[in-house]
Amino acid sequence: MKKEFTVAILGATGLVGQRMIKQLEQSTIPVKKVKFLASKRSAGKKLKFRDQEVEVEETRPESFSGVDIVLSSAGGAVSKKFLPEAVKRGSVCIDNTSAFRMDPDVPLVVPEVNGEEIKNHHGIIANPNCSTIQMVMALKPMMDKFGLKRVIVSTYQAASGAGHAALEELFKEAKDYMAGKNIRDEAEVLPTAGDKKHYPLAFNLLPQIDVFEDDGYSHEEWKMIHETKKILLNDMNAADIKVTATCVRVPVEIAHGESVYFELADKNATVSDLEKVLKDFPGVQVQNDFRKQEYPQPLNAVGSNDTFVGRIRPDLETPGAFNMWVVADNLLKGAAGNTVQIAEKLVANDWL
Amino acid sequence: MKKEFTVAILGATGLVGQRMIKQLEQSTIPVKKVKFLASKRSAGKKLKFRDQEVEVEETRPESFSGVDIVLSSAGGAVSKKFLPEAVKRGSVCIDNTSAFRMDPDVPLVVPEVNGEEIKNHHGIIANPNCSTIQMVMALKPMMDKFGLKRVIVSTYQAASGAGHAALEELFKEAKDYMAGKNIRDEAEVLPTAGDKKHYPLAFNLLPQIDVFEDDGYSHEEWKMIHETKKILLNDMNAADIKVTATCVRVPVEIAHGESVYFELADKNATVSDLEKVLKDFPGVQVQNDFRKQEYPQPLNAVGSNDTFVGRIRPDLETPGAFNMWVVADNLLKGAAGNTVQIAEKLVANDWL
Repeated sequence: MKKEFTVAILGATGLVGQRMIKQLEQSTIPVKKVKFLASKRSAGKKLKFRDQEVEVEETRPESFSGVDIVLSSAGGAVSKKFLPEAVKRGSVCIDNTSAFRMDPDVPLVVPEVNGEEIKNHHGIIANPNCSTIQMVMALKPMMDKFGLKRVIVSTYQAASGAGHAALEELFKEAKDYMAGKNIRDEAEVLPTAGDKKHYPLAFNLLPQIDVFEDDGYSHEEWKMIHETKKILLNDMNAADIKVTATCVRVPVEIAHGESVYFELADKNATVSDLEKVLKDFPGVQVQNDFRKQEYPQPLNAVGSNDTFVGRIRPDLETPGAFNMWVVADNLLKGAAGNTVQIAEKLVANDWL
Repeated sequence: MKKEFTVAILGATGLVGQRMIKQLEQSTIPVKKVKFLASKRSAGKKLKFRDQEVEVEETRPESFSGVDIVLSSAGGAVSKKFLPEAVKRGSVCIDNTSAFRMDPDVPLVVPEVNGEEIKNHHGIIANPNCSTIQMVMALKPMMDKFGLKRVIVSTYQAASGAGHAALEELFKEAKDYMAGKNIRDEAEVLPTAGDKKHYPLAFNLLPQIDVFEDDGYSHEEWKMIHETKKILLNDMNAADIKVTATCVRVPVEIAHGESVYFELADKNATVSDLEKVLKDFPGVQVQNDFRKQEYPQPLNAVGSNDTFVGRIRPDLETPGAFNMWVVADNLLKGAAGNTVQIAEKLVANDWL
């Protein structure tokens, strides 16, 4: 008899949770039963899964009894509290928060990039940060063929990365701004709910995502540096590839843009060489014909689980160095899509 | 008797022209008379200058007779056609278009950075591109003290850089997007009126500013590379400082952001060393206290002629290299403000 799985979605009512449900509906995983878990506040809500109506339950340690796979996106504190309980009860957890990403016992996985790491799990597999995922998707095929020495990235990140409340705030501010109101004092959520001051994002730019570390980098920038090293080199502090990042929130609803500068070891690689390895890489779409004004745009990437790469051009003064522009749906490939891909690979290889 | 000047504003009805009028009203230049010049379409409109009402005239070669100073921002083709006529009639022209910027006989000037160049003019002085101006304002003091080797910039440019029509388009799209309409086919102006295809900017990102060169760089990126070299090194192709750029239009009304990565010759410079030279530089405001969530934002820069610098932090793996975030009002310091500053310096030094 074909094996079937009970899948719990922790944080089912959030922006990412909602997309986890959709991705799971469309996935290759044989689902016997789903459980939708959330905070007490959301308990009792009814959500659809395929043709069933499923009631959201308040998350408790016992919620995970009989659960084979947990897809988790309810915030780091929730993951830290409940995922060990789930593991204790025999679940394998795929966690979209930053709670366990830097744990050396927890694989940090983008399936196309380092999918084999999944089998080394001890009950928890971490889904990387949204902005990291789309960047390593673009870098990996070039790294494998030409060697990668250095990355300098500037991000253009959509408000949906900060959840429902951030999106509502952005839209309200945008309407008020266009009605001529002063929106300076309206913000209560962005740049990040976890910090003291709040600033408007509508028709503005906020060079802060998450809180600041003592060295002046934001935690989002820290993640891009160390997660990239862990995914590409299996060591969060590896020195073989230098990475630095500037992360900026922009008034976009969904899909992040990234301006990525990178230096290859092979100084003879051409743009068409790079296009070729990118085109051959699963999950990457090359949109790189500047003569036809073809390049990735957030509005065109929404709803796709692919990573879009374009504007690839050599630094005119540094051999082996290039600029490129990378866009992906931060809620799909950057979150729910990648999480469900990990679950699919886990199931397909019987790595539970 | 104190000398007084007749000043013509060419392109007086445009977004930049309007701000040139305001800046001139507040300037130290003794103005005897103003002439507002524009296309035939705008002729007859009445605009205020201090307490006078001034009628806009259609631009003709004879319009420049008796004009001492021309402030020009009506597009490159208009500048190419009329500025030689003005020079022939004895005017000194300060041109905010790209028409003459790369002419070796035309100084390209940011007053705080290379103001002495003004005196080498032969009737035309060029105002640099908006995104270039704010970047060189931040780089110059650090270059003078610590030596500058390399610049990698990603821009976040406001829609007002593309004029009135682009702003109207952005606001219409934003309203339609929030009303649930599909805005994919609405655009007629952006990314650039001069190219074939048009894409929406509202809740989107467009990695194209101006048309593309044959090497895949946009003309805006080309300007940032070569204008920066001309301003900082007096040679548009100088190799002493390597510059590469990625220019992106973002859904912001006014003020550009820039994520600037730079490498200094002096590998021992610290963030506080950089803050010090930046604070001492006229026209720069340092907003660099991440512990207080203090950093430059477009909404806070609008209406100021200063350049705001923050998020200054060392690359953690490359000695002497730093990231910073630079914001300025693209219509003021990036255009009208810098132009009127050039005129003030011209007059103050009797360099006409």
